Amino acid sequence: MKYLNETDIWKCVTMTDVIDSIDEAYWQYEEGNFKMPTRSQIPDGDNTLILMPCISSASIGTKLVTSFPHNQTHPTLHSLVILNDKDNGSIQAMMDGAFLTGLRTGAIGGSAVRHLAKPVVKTLAVVGTGVQGYYQTLAACSERDFTDIYFYNRSLHKVPDFIEQLRPHLNPETRLHICSTVENAVRDSDVIITATTSKTPVLPEDESLYYGKLVIGVGSFQPAMQEFPNSLFRSAQAYYIDSHDAKKESGDVINPIKHGTIHESQIQNFSAVIKNGIQSNQLNYEEGSVIFKSTGMALFDVVCASDIYERAKELNVGTEL
Amino acid sequence: MKYLNETDIWKCVTMTDVIDSIDEAYWQYEEGNFKMPTRSQIPDGDNTLILMPCISSASIGTKLVTSFPHNQTHPTLHSLVILNDKDNGSIQAMMDGAFLTGLRTGAIGGSAVRHLAKPVVKTLAVVGTGVQGYYQTLAACSERDFTDIYFYNRSLHKVPDFIEQLRPHLNPETRLHICSTVENAVRDSDVIITATTSKTPVLPEDESLYYGKLVIGVGSFQPAMQEFPNSLFRSAQAYYIDSHDAKKESGDVINPIKHGTIHESQIQNFSAVIKNGIQSNQLNYEEGSVIFKSTGMALFDVVCASDIYERAKELNVGTEL
Repeated sequence: MKYLNETDIWKCVTMTDVIDSIDEAYWQYEEGNFKMPTRSQIPDGDNTLILMPCISSASIGTKLVTSFPHNQTHPTLHSLVILNDKDNGSIQAMMDGAFLTGLRTGAIGGSAVRHLAKPVVKTLAVVGTGVQGYYQTLAACSERDFTDIYFYNRSLHKVPDFIEQLRPHLNPETRLHICSTVENAVRDSDVIITATTSKTPVLPEDESLYYGKLVIGVGSFQPAMQEFPNSLFRSAQAYYIDSHDAKKESGDVINPIKHGTIHESQIQNFSAVIKNGIQSNQLNYEEGSVIFKSTGMALFDVVCASDIYERAKELNVGTEL
Repeated sequence: MKYLNETDIWKCVTMTDVIDSIDEAYWQYEEGNFKMPTRSQIPDGDNTLILMPCISSASIGTKLVTSFPHNQTHPTLHSLVILNDKDNGSIQAMMDGAFLTGLRTGAIGGSAVRHLAKPVVKTLAVVGTGVQGYYQTLAACSERDFTDIYFYNRSLHKVPDFIEQLRPHLNPETRLHICSTVENAVRDSDVIITATTSKTPVLPEDESLYYGKLVIGVGSFQPAMQEFPNSLFRSAQAYYIDSHDAKKESGDVINPIKHGTIHESQIQNFSAVIKNGIQSNQLNYEEGSVIFKSTGMALFDVVCASDIYERAKELNVGTEL
């Protein structure tokens, strides 16, 4: 049995490998080759223990998360991923679940860039420079060569540290910009990624800003959260979600359907794209924007963890317990 | 964050300490000072992933178990216990769940011996010499000095190895006997413990064998399992269970109620005994037998794990991750 921390996991996989795992997870999702019951939530006042089990085609995985929204000195989320052998039930590995979640959520965005962005895109906007903004940037840059990246964050003073942390992992020729307004960040960007937990749209209400662009949202995971403005929905020529459940989970999907800004039939599972390939009429950037929205699911965690574990065995990485 | 294996845990606690933790868990149970949702079961063919979360007064605990009934070379059960800090959600420890389950189940039997056995008892019968028989014997012997212990197992050839493993941990003056029939094992025993997964009674159908004795059952945990015979229920002057749920879970409780051999009102929660003390009229061994039946619950795991972790911190025991 192995314990794998962040350093161990980076020894096993690149972001490109994790994006490959995400694509594999979509394939299993589309085939229905998994068991993923509703997550269990055990509340304790405002704190919550969340258990997310999932049996993939290759592994048994459980993600355990504690959510402590009032934490001041500790992170508000702690997480562990446990992997059991599907053939005999033995415990194969325990992994840093907070890191794995960041990594795989980055790779979900990266998979959207891989399959949905135009072959040549030059500019990227990242709105929200927290942990997710970090992994989203790494993943997008592992799939396309951007000449310029525009960062916006509500707390502007946090961006320089963020860029300093990111810089060593990016192409040194990529120019990194701090933007004082979100308009400045998105205006000239071919790809826009939002990674905030905002309850009101973080992108401007200006339809002209989105035509011909890929817009990826990974922040909103509850009905009361919404990152995208109505003008984005109106500009959409395609809207993809990473699982059926996004229609129940995120305000970015629930609200435009409820208000008629977008019709439910326009919203498609991205897993079908992965399995069947993009049809020529599906990505018509000349007619509007392409939206991708992720709320995540335990199947992503277990497929990524399983691929990481296989590589850790080969490379003899991790703490043996 | 610590990982604690069997060796680590034995460095932290004695069986007496674990019995103290069990008594503390009963106290919290009786006070209602915990949150213990129904366990989640995720089936995969005949195999099952089981998640047992519980929030005690001091900790957040999750026991993860995989049940693979057809395993030949691997154990049929694998388990991990994860402990999170109740104040900030951080992961405190992961522990060998199979060992912890054996240890705490032993201590549940030990607590029953502590509170229910007559002050002086000299002889013990253990029926079923598997993992549970081992910990039950250790725990019973930590609470009373037995001069003789009588072992019975369906596969008689397994008993000598079992005794060899147990011998170093018992009072060297205690005589250990291998019995070829269960009648021989129980006839002269003051305390009888059954630790099998039998679907039909393993104790003889002879009421005279049980008068004046404490009979503890820890094996049956499903409605289709029953270790106790009808004659034992007829001889009972008190019947204690370790949680309300035993009435739904074990054939040793369900069947005698269904068949009217015992009335539901005679079956009492042992937690009330722990909190209120034994009343003078409750243990009238001259009028019959006293039965204690355990099916276990996650609250026992989390209280024991939490006490072990506190001691591991003090002693600096375990693998730091």
